[in-house]
Amino acid sequence: MNQIQVGSRLQYFVQSPTTLLLNISVAQNDHQSTSHESIEIEPFHKIEECAVGPLGNRLVRINALPGELTIQYQATVQLHADEVDSANVMESEYEDLPADALAYLNPSRYCESDKLFRFAGEEFGSLLPGYSRVTAICNWTFEHLTYTPGSTGPTTTACDVLLQRTGVCRDYAHVAISLCRAMGIPARYVSGYAVNLQPPDFHGFFEAYLGGRWYLFDATRLAPVGGFVRIGTGRDAADVAFATIRGDAQSTNLEVWADEQQADDHLLDPDNVQTAVSSV
Amino acid sequence: MNQIQVGSRLQYFVQSPTTLLLNISVAQNDHQSTSHESIEIEPFHKIEECAVGPLGNRLVRINALPGELTIQYQATVQLHADEVDSANVMESEYEDLPADALAYLNPSRYCESDKLFRFAGEEFGSLLPGYSRVTAICNWTFEHLTYTPGSTGPTTTACDVLLQRTGVCRDYAHVAISLCRAMGIPARYVSGYAVNLQPPDFHGFFEAYLGGRWYLFDATRLAPVGGFVRIGTGRDAADVAFATIRGDAQSTNLEVWADEQQADDHLLDPDNVQTAVSSV
Amino acid sequence: MNQIQVGSRLQYFVQSPTTLLLNISVAQNDHQSTSHESIEIEPFHKIEECAVGPLGNRLVRINALPGELTIQYQATVQLHADEVDSANVMESEYEDLPADALAYLNPSRYCESDKLFRFAGEEFGSLLPGYSRVTAICNWTFEHLTYTPGSTGPTTTACDVLLQRTGVCRDYAHVAISLCRAMGIPARYVSGYAVNLQPPDFHGFFEAYLGGRWYLFDATRLAPVGGFVRIGTGRDAADVAFATIRGDAQSTNLEVWADEQQADDHLLDPDNVQTAVSSV
Amino acid sequence: MNQIQVGSRLQYFVQSPTTLLLNISVAQNDHQSTSHESIEIEPFHKIEECAVGPLGNRLVRINALPGELTIQYQATVQLHADEVDSANVMESEYEDLPADALAYLNPSRYCESDKLFRFAGEEFGSLLPGYSRVTAICNWTFEHLTYTPGSTGPTTTACDVLLQRTGVCRDYAHVAISLCRAMGIPARYVSGYAVNLQPPDFHGFFEAYLGGRWYLFDATRLAPVGGFVRIGTGRDAADVAFATIRGDAQSTNLEVWADEQQADDHLLDPDNVQTAVSSV
Repeated sequence: MNQIQVGSRLQYFVQSPTTLLLNISVAQNDHQSTSHESIEIEPFHKIEECAVGPLGNRLVRINALPGELTIQYQATVQLHADEVDSANVMESEYEDLPADALAYLNPSRYCESDKLFRFAGEEFGSLLPGYSRVTAICNWTFEHLTYTPGSTGPTTTACDVLLQRTGVCRDYAHVAISLCRAMGIPARYVSGYAVNLQPPDFHGFFEAYLGGRWYLFDATRLAPVGGFVRIGTGRDAADVAFATIRGDAQSTNLEVWADEQQADDHLLDPDNVQTAVSSV
Repeated sequence: MNQIQVGSRLQYFVQSPTTLLLNISVAQNDHQSTSHESIEIEPFHKIEECAVGPLGNRLVRINALPGELTIQYQATVQLHADEVDSANVMESEYEDLPADALAYLNPSRYCESDKLFRFAGEEFGSLLPGYSRVTAICNWTFEHLTYTPGSTGPTTTACDVLLQRTGVCRDYAHVAISLCRAMGIPARYVSGYAVNLQPPDFHGFFEAYLGGRWYLFDATRLAPVGGFVRIGTGRDAADVAFATIRGDAQSTNLEVWADEQQADDHLLDPDNVQTAVSSV
Repeated sequence: MNQIQVGSRLQYFVQSPTTLLLNISVAQNDHQSTSHESIEIEPFHKIEECAVGPLGNRLVRINALPGELTIQYQATVQLHADEVDSANVMESEYEDLPADALAYLNPSRYCESDKLFRFAGEEFGSLLPGYSRVTAICNWTFEHLTYTPGSTGPTTTACDVLLQRTGVCRDYAHVAISLCRAMGIPARYVSGYAVNLQPPDFHGFFEAYLGGRWYLFDATRLAPVGGFVRIGTGRDAADVAFATIRGDAQSTNLEVWADEQQADDHLLDPDNVQTAVSSV
Repeated sequence: MNQIQVGSRLQYFVQSPTTLLLNISVAQNDHQSTSHESIEIEPFHKIEECAVGPLGNRLVRINALPGELTIQYQATVQLHADEVDSANVMESEYEDLPADALAYLNPSRYCESDKLFRFAGEEFGSLLPGYSRVTAICNWTFEHLTYTPGSTGPTTTACDVLLQRTGVCRDYAHVAISLCRAMGIPARYVSGYAVNLQPPDFHGFFEAYLGGRWYLFDATRLAPVGGFVRIGTGRDAADVAFATIRGDAQSTNLEVWADEQQADDHLLDPDNVQTAVSSV
């Protein structure tokens, strides 16, 4: 068990009454619990908290009045990521996939796996099935893309990125998810806080379903996988935007942090960017 | 309450061991129940039935051996679609949308609403909110597209269709869903059997969330909305394919039927293609 | 005959030896001639001038050494745009189009007319053929797009713009060109200097082939058509980039001007943004 | 000098008065001449012949009346393709490219080279410049695509094909052209007759500008490059469609042939699919 202090401070200038939907609270499950969790709004606004879907995404909705607005979230997280011996992790046969995993084979807005069956088959079809094949997909993504802030936008898809060969964390995740799905491996997007991510920011990575369980992967290799604190889980980034704004408000500042408080193992070490771990 | 006899017969030639995932069984909910439901496989194969998601999509999975394969599904359905006075149906404010409806504002594979905010705003932004605005979106879709079998394929999206101006039922639904979401109205895809659809086939239509409830719409105007028997509900057609094939099997024949057995009201009348009804 | 003083000053910081290909010199033809034309490079670099294609685009190629680089072009232009009575300008029948005009019916990189036959047909197919139909295409473009600097980039196409409904001058031209071609009207892109354009900049507009002649159009309505000084003519913006850079150089400043020196008619009046004129 | 008998028979059923624009006549230049050339229309229609552009594309325009229509073209071609020692063929520096070649660096409708700079750079940027780099591009195209009739359509682009990894001859040419342009090598599309192509059909291939001259390439490896009889030359397939139809006519049959009549060298041998030749 590792203990991590996470948080974020979002500042806006609200021009006219605006509803903000925030997905910045850490998810609660058997592998993640929080203590000292708080959300503060300055000036005071009533907030509504709601959970979405069976995956426990936690949303905060604020009807903001015009003026400056600061939202600060923080929590101390007890994280129990399970480290596994990846050599024994096999792919599940299609006929054995549980019903809940099937939807993560479907193409989604930013992961057009339905256009990439042959592409994926040619690049990864001859590899042995299993955890190592998803690693090969991550390696291919890491090697063929260049991490370039600003090179993509909110409507950029995996197919766009496969052609332009640049992107940021969400794009790396979308490419790897698409290639996994095209190979018949259920895959989904995860947003989170990440210990030792430089510069600190919200992070986007993914999970693949292998051998009856979801495993975390990050094709960017920017931070230790075992230190990922889950916020939201979805088909792709469309499902877990950290802030959705209806109205007229401009972001004026964003700070994010994720600091190791107590480490019982090596999972938070900066170099462990490819450890095999599961956190659901 | 109306009673409808629905069914489908799917025939395949299976070249090598193949898994078929079928989504052809009618959904079970407060508005739909079945009697005399059966699924027959010829030659005999064991089947696995599973439900997916909170919406009650029912899947049948078959591990098929090489050779001819016939699947015949049939059911007698008691359908209680609620007819409503649409004049009183308002849009929900964004701040009042329940958490479960929020995901249906997100863009999805075939409904790129994130690219259409201005398009939708210009065409429908000045209309009065409410059921009538979704009707206006359906009318626009009906008037600007030409129903042309074969003009689109499995990877065609709403944006493709908005440019080429032709499509089939799934494309009409994708366009209307995308425009609804871009206007802030949650919308989702529904597959089903449809009484009085000519020629008989599986049908695709959609639901929009208005005034605290989901309402059925069909921009094709090809069949009475009150006679739609729900099979599956999802983000878009990607979620409710009636057959997904992993392996090597060719479809050799498809028959679909949906026959009125007993009608207590006018909802099944062929002309009632724009009635305001809700069936969940 | 009107006399216009045009010019541009381009400044770069060249990191390593770089070739610049500039298309900023005004075209020479029966309707445009120059006096006092000069191009100055600071510091001194040898330049190569070459003409491309039958349309007389004039290119300047510079092999630039590292350091600051300033290119200043200026010319006094005698412009003889012919004003016409558009009521008498008809479309040419396809069978009568001269061979040289046929290529301007083909789709090009940023003008995917081959995807828009039905779109164009539905919007403009019932209108009377002739100059007025191209005017209708310009009006539609003007009314459905919002001029938004920064909303598009170098790879944005007409189809992208038709969906997102925003763009700048090159996008307006691409949309109108695409719709013209889809209607069977040859259309091509023209870059130029524009009198009374605010803020001053290079401008992009288009020409349509009607009744045996090319006519100028500008769907942005930002400047008087009769004051357009032609630089380059091409399939679309891909053919007439004002600067193409091979190497490593950053633009540090750009100034463009086009000032009326002597006006013999009303063609340069700021309001004459829809005059029917031909300048080739 | 090799002598080849080429021809094509196109049959249509014309529903209403229709203009056909055919690009099926072989080009005339220093490397290609014809004897016994004829074009027969059954029933008799007057035809108009015109040449387009500096590249000598020859068009035939027919205003067809309703009914059956057969067009038969044939010619005996004297073909002088120059075989070269490719080891000595270098790329031209950008600063040395002649003005006429520059347009073939621009992206075009089906060759979106402007989206592929990084892609091309990563795959081919470290290779030695010269003829061998274009060969590497052809090899990459050959190895990553599967030749699949029917897998693409008239609006399919190089980027589409790079993702779906299947196509026909025009798609192979578009991919290779796009990658060449993205590497700074001018490249253009050529349509033609091809000796020893199985099954016989019109063929699409390409030319790259290297060391001051255009060289023929064919990434499909389906027929000997030295036996290609040029019909049309253009930016991409949009410029050299063998038949463009305005009106209402359906193709009912198409036959194409290209038979060796006299061979003075080995260039027509079926295996010589990668010979270095130039024919302009």
